[in-house]
Amino acid sequence: MKFRFLSVILVFLFTISLRLTSFADDGYRLWQRYDLIKDAQKRQYYQENTTGLLMEGNSPTLTAARQELEMAISGLLGKPLRSSTAIASGVLVLGTPQNSPVIKSLNLASKLVPLGSEGFLILSTTVNNKKATVITANSDVGVLYGTFHFLKLLQTQQDINNLAISSAPKIKNRILNHWDNLDRTVERGYAGFSIWDWHRLPDYIDQRYLDYARANASIGINGTVLTNVNANALILTKDYLIKVKALADAFRPYGLKVYLTARFSAPIEIGKLKTADPLDPEVKTWWKNKAAEVYSYVPDFGGFLVKANSEGQPGPQNYGRNHADGANMLADAIADKGGIVMWRAFVYDNKVPDDRAKQAFTEFKPLDGSFRKNVLVQVKNGPIDFQPREPFHPLFGAMPKTPLMMEFQITQEYLGQATNLVYQAPLYKETLDADTYVKGAGSTVAKVIDGSLHHYQLTGIAGVSNIGNDRNWTGHLFGQANWYCFGRLAWDPTLSSEKIADEWLRMTFTNETAFLNPIKNLMLQSRETLVNYMTPLGLHHIMGYSHHYGPGPWIKDKQRADWTSVYYHKATAEGIGFDRTPTGSNALAQYSPAIQQKFGNPQTCPEEFLLWFHHLKWDYKVKSGRTLWGEICQRYYQGAAEVGKMRQTWQTIQAFVDAERFNHVKMLLNIQEKEARWWRDACVLYFQTFSGRPIPAGLEKPTQNLDYYVSQDPKFVPGN
Amino acid sequence: MKFRFLSVILVFLFTISLRLTSFADDGYRLWQRYDLIKDAQKRQYYQENTTGLLMEGNSPTLTAARQELEMAISGLLGKPLRSSTAIASGVLVLGTPQNSPVIKSLNLASKLVPLGSEGFLILSTTVNNKKATVITANSDVGVLYGTFHFLKLLQTQQDINNLAISSAPKIKNRILNHWDNLDRTVERGYAGFSIWDWHRLPDYIDQRYLDYARANASIGINGTVLTNVNANALILTKDYLIKVKALADAFRPYGLKVYLTARFSAPIEIGKLKTADPLDPEVKTWWKNKAAEVYSYVPDFGGFLVKANSEGQPGPQNYGRNHADGANMLADAIADKGGIVMWRAFVYDNKVPDDRAKQAFTEFKPLDGSFRKNVLVQVKNGPIDFQPREPFHPLFGAMPKTPLMMEFQITQEYLGQATNLVYQAPLYKETLDADTYVKGAGSTVAKVIDGSLHHYQLTGIAGVSNIGNDRNWTGHLFGQANWYCFGRLAWDPTLSSEKIADEWLRMTFTNETAFLNPIKNLMLQSRETLVNYMTPLGLHHIMGYSHHYGPGPWIKDKQRADWTSVYYHKATAEGIGFDRTPTGSNALAQYSPAIQQKFGNPQTCPEEFLLWFHHLKWDYKVKSGRTLWGEICQRYYQGAAEVGKMRQTWQTIQAFVDAERFNHVKMLLNIQEKEARWWRDACVLYFQTFSGRPIPAGLEKPTQNLDYYVSQDPKFVPGN
Repeated sequence: MKFRFLSVILVFLFTISLRLTSFADDGYRLWQRYDLIKDAQKRQYYQENTTGLLMEGNSPTLTAARQELEMAISGLLGKPLRSSTAIASGVLVLGTPQNSPVIKSLNLASKLVPLGSEGFLILSTTVNNKKATVITANSDVGVLYGTFHFLKLLQTQQDINNLAISSAPKIKNRILNHWDNLDRTVERGYAGFSIWDWHRLPDYIDQRYLDYARANASIGINGTVLTNVNANALILTKDYLIKVKALADAFRPYGLKVYLTARFSAPIEIGKLKTADPLDPEVKTWWKNKAAEVYSYVPDFGGFLVKANSEGQPGPQNYGRNHADGANMLADAIADKGGIVMWRAFVYDNKVPDDRAKQAFTEFKPLDGSFRKNVLVQVKNGPIDFQPREPFHPLFGAMPKTPLMMEFQITQEYLGQATNLVYQAPLYKETLDADTYVKGAGSTVAKVIDGSLHHYQLTGIAGVSNIGNDRNWTGHLFGQANWYCFGRLAWDPTLSSEKIADEWLRMTFTNETAFLNPIKNLMLQSRETLVNYMTPLGLHHIMGYSHHYGPGPWIKDKQRADWTSVYYHKATAEGIGFDRTPTGSNALAQYSPAIQQKFGNPQTCPEEFLLWFHHLKWDYKVKSGRTLWGEICQRYYQGAAEVGKMRQTWQTIQAFVDAERFNHVKMLLNIQEKEARWWRDACVLYFQTFSGRPIPAGLEKPTQNLDYYVSQDPKFVPGN
Repeated sequence: MKFRFLSVILVFLFTISLRLTSFADDGYRLWQRYDLIKDAQKRQYYQENTTGLLMEGNSPTLTAARQELEMAISGLLGKPLRSSTAIASGVLVLGTPQNSPVIKSLNLASKLVPLGSEGFLILSTTVNNKKATVITANSDVGVLYGTFHFLKLLQTQQDINNLAISSAPKIKNRILNHWDNLDRTVERGYAGFSIWDWHRLPDYIDQRYLDYARANASIGINGTVLTNVNANALILTKDYLIKVKALADAFRPYGLKVYLTARFSAPIEIGKLKTADPLDPEVKTWWKNKAAEVYSYVPDFGGFLVKANSEGQPGPQNYGRNHADGANMLADAIADKGGIVMWRAFVYDNKVPDDRAKQAFTEFKPLDGSFRKNVLVQVKNGPIDFQPREPFHPLFGAMPKTPLMMEFQITQEYLGQATNLVYQAPLYKETLDADTYVKGAGSTVAKVIDGSLHHYQLTGIAGVSNIGNDRNWTGHLFGQANWYCFGRLAWDPTLSSEKIADEWLRMTFTNETAFLNPIKNLMLQSRETLVNYMTPLGLHHIMGYSHHYGPGPWIKDKQRADWTSVYYHKATAEGIGFDRTPTGSNALAQYSPAIQQKFGNPQTCPEEFLLWFHHLKWDYKVKSGRTLWGEICQRYYQGAAEVGKMRQTWQTIQAFVDAERFNHVKMLLNIQEKEARWWRDACVLYFQTFSGRPIPAGLEKPTQNLDYYVSQDPKFVPGN
């Protein structure tokens, strides 16, 4: 009784103390908030199952797990987690059979073997006849992953009795790509400066580095490419390698490996060689030595990511060699250390191709089988460039002898950048779940990249980071959900967008269903809404020039035709759309016959890809019964209207969110609604100059004329 | 008794809750932390004097004062501050005689009148026979300033009985200068990106803007120049003015006025005129209209800061006009709105002058009396450029008919940049307390800029901001002390460095004397230490080229001689130093005769300025009895050794500081020690090539040779 009374006071005072903190919540803590669970019964229940911590092993990774548990349990339950040396009822037992005699005694080998080097097991069991929860794995990092999973159960207020959870990642290399420059600007970054403070490294280890590693470990991300694919060779000099080492040392306990981008011309720029020809013996030796130097600083260095012969970056083609020649030379330099090369398939020919969408396939498909075993070819999710919607990239399924790695873009270059709320799990899932049909129905992209379809030994998935030094990491608070869902899908591509949103919302905001239901729905709809107000029905690449902010369907006459909008939408007085069927570029031929058949006919082509594959007349009748022109208008208006509804929905959940985060999202939704209307009005007015048809009755008229929108010229757009 | 018991629990739980927060302290809260006062008796005492808040007025500024009080009292005392409508014992009464009948009834006019529009009065008194504390002023912003002062008394644990504090600023315009570019880079910024997120303005009001305004108001800063003196005319276009308005609206309740930098060529660049000649009628009209447009968005716009004809910036001299012509034209454009022009005296001639130190005086002194009444000439503290030590600028005292405004540099361009702990109050005080002798002894620089010496109607002081979007605002936690001390000295130049350090330390860390004594001492010595390891005995401008990071005494053969180091130190086999006496450049003639006499003789010249004014032989005997060469060595070694002691001192106070902030400072002191040794070794070895003398016995030999130091070429130095 007395305890109850104190407990009530405790909660009351905790609540006060939260309210009394001088500053409201700025989102820095991500989904690892660990605020006190308000429901005393739930706390009591969890306390009974976390009476102590028995950890027999000792390593930096296990220490990280212990610290996380201590911090989290103290925060969530309002009581310290005590270390135990003996088994008592409700104890947590952490470790591996190798470092924990107690765990070894449980004889879990048959359960552990299938989990590999990173999977984990969480078991409710009895040890010495005492109730215990065991978190174990074949490695310390597996124990750490299991620890984060266990904490998530508490954060999301799940039952933790009778646990028998085993989980192992389906993809081996789960990697963030930072497009961060050495001057701390971030290409396509919308959350401030780079979090890498190169100037103060190696001696200053920012707390942020540790919190970054914690966050990544909590969702299973195990690698990070520190530098921009538009690379600077200086990162490979000693001055920078000692800084890279400092970061690698800080990340190592969290199972996070460091990778770098390799500028192909580095042998010339910092090595003083006359060539960077990958077949030149001196060049090979230079890279071999350079790799040895890198490994002398970072013994578990992950390897190189390379963008070559694309958008002005140097590459093997400068010397008449092909991509495999370049990748293999680098791969040979690091093979004996266990390093990998991630060679990007996002390439540009010097000549403008008849269809930009075909280029990667054209260049890489013939190279299938000619790459070294430690090379992954990193392919963007679609064949153009991270558009709001693209069909899956035709290379997926087309290179059975070459491990293909997925590249998603978490940062919202084409998805509203600094201001738009777009939950990207549905986008990622759409690609992952897409069926390539290359080995019959069910040959999904996910099965290509998890290696199961073609028996790849090496597997990988990359996400271009949306992280910067803004206080909330990602600029838009909901950008955190995209970092989170990337990690979760990298671990398990079969997870649903809804489940991931649910987890993230519970940990980031609250477990109250009155909040969860409307906001989960808002998140799940957000990407389709953006597609509607930006690029409905398969339209693509019609945004502002270079900075990619705002609408720019009128962009033409630039350095390359395939950097213009008119190249992609091909609007005329007769119709609109890019004919990629045999009557056009026949990019469709790069897909399997089943896809060709389905997508090749506008009647059976999924409507979301209609204008991606077909040039159709303005009066073409779509499924709704509307004309194509009417449907385009309808979608733009619907998209903008939906943002208005998002704004209204957010207003309804004010009671569940602290003022700072509530206002943050509220202001950004206001901006998003303005921007959605901007897109709508600009695109409809522009396409109307071709269609010559009125905006359908019932849709409000744009307040400005087309000239106004064309004359908009935003300056200093972030990330450009 | 029951209350006592609860109170004990309260404190206990508060302490726990602080310990339990998932993340340690990142310094975001600056000196406005408001953590619970641990001493229960003190809390009790303060509680008895803050039983309620009686505020009869209502305005955005008073609301800001109320919110601050509520937040602070809740935090410091662990109990909410209740609003009262009646007088009870221990009440706080806030307001002005105009908006508060209670205060009006106290008949404080005689005390209030001398306080002007920003001063405040804090009185312990009785109202209706009840004990009360009255915070009042002639304006709401005065009440806000008084509120912050009152809170400081609690934060620093002062007695608050028998208060009779009246305080008014000695300088009218107390302004931060942000050298922030529209792309969010910050020139000479070492704390990340600009906090102005132009892209998301005007619709997104970052919480940081409000916390920035709060911090400034707490130290009396009442103006902010948002943009870099190397200006971009785009800030004056409508697209940006609506963003400026949003910031001005956010800052207004805190008494913080917005200013902009005016690019002199704006009429050409954004106005499409053919000229920016200040005497051209079209140009005058353009600026008049532009000013009207600015005021239409920001009715209380403060005015323009201008850097003209300096380092490539356009200015009136491009058209054969002088600085007064330029300044007056702008001044006329904003005079009727109450705006001011701050015209910088930091100018460069196209020709390299015989002595860079003379230039500002040479150009501006003849213009004395020719400026409009609403022009201030903004003069850097010394005649070169924010060096670790400079004599006061000779313009101070030399322009009796022209209000001169002080420009200090808070950001540490020449003071160790991103990594060095240098408390700058002693530097500011050295200039402010310097005696110009222009009206006899006691004619201090402070009396020039507070207007008392020459009866300036307009007064001002500017500090070049060290603020960025790093989580702790200033990169180095102790950089916060420089923002703080700038504000405090702007309000009252007579405050001592020690008092300000004491206040800041108490509010930022703890009131424990075992912490305060050593760390206050460390702060007070830190600037002299830096002078010793960088530029002892009057040496100056010998840092790395362009980025100004690290030593570069060997810099020569650049675009301008006065951008090299050899121009300034003039080391030869015979000796070292810049002869600014009549046998040399005679820059000394720009000072008053008393100064000339004292500084002109190396025997009477203050040793800290010895090589600023004199070229002396290596064997010249200084006061210590050492040769000049020996003393130079001694100072460099002493400076570096002192940083080692700072590092050790910090180690001793670990118990008083949370782990995150402790480690932050610890790591930076480690770096500072490395950098101090780098300076020491590089400079001693370099100057040794001229002196030809050995490093004195007892001083350790540099570990590298001179070539090594000369070959250092740091890349991507921040702020460059």
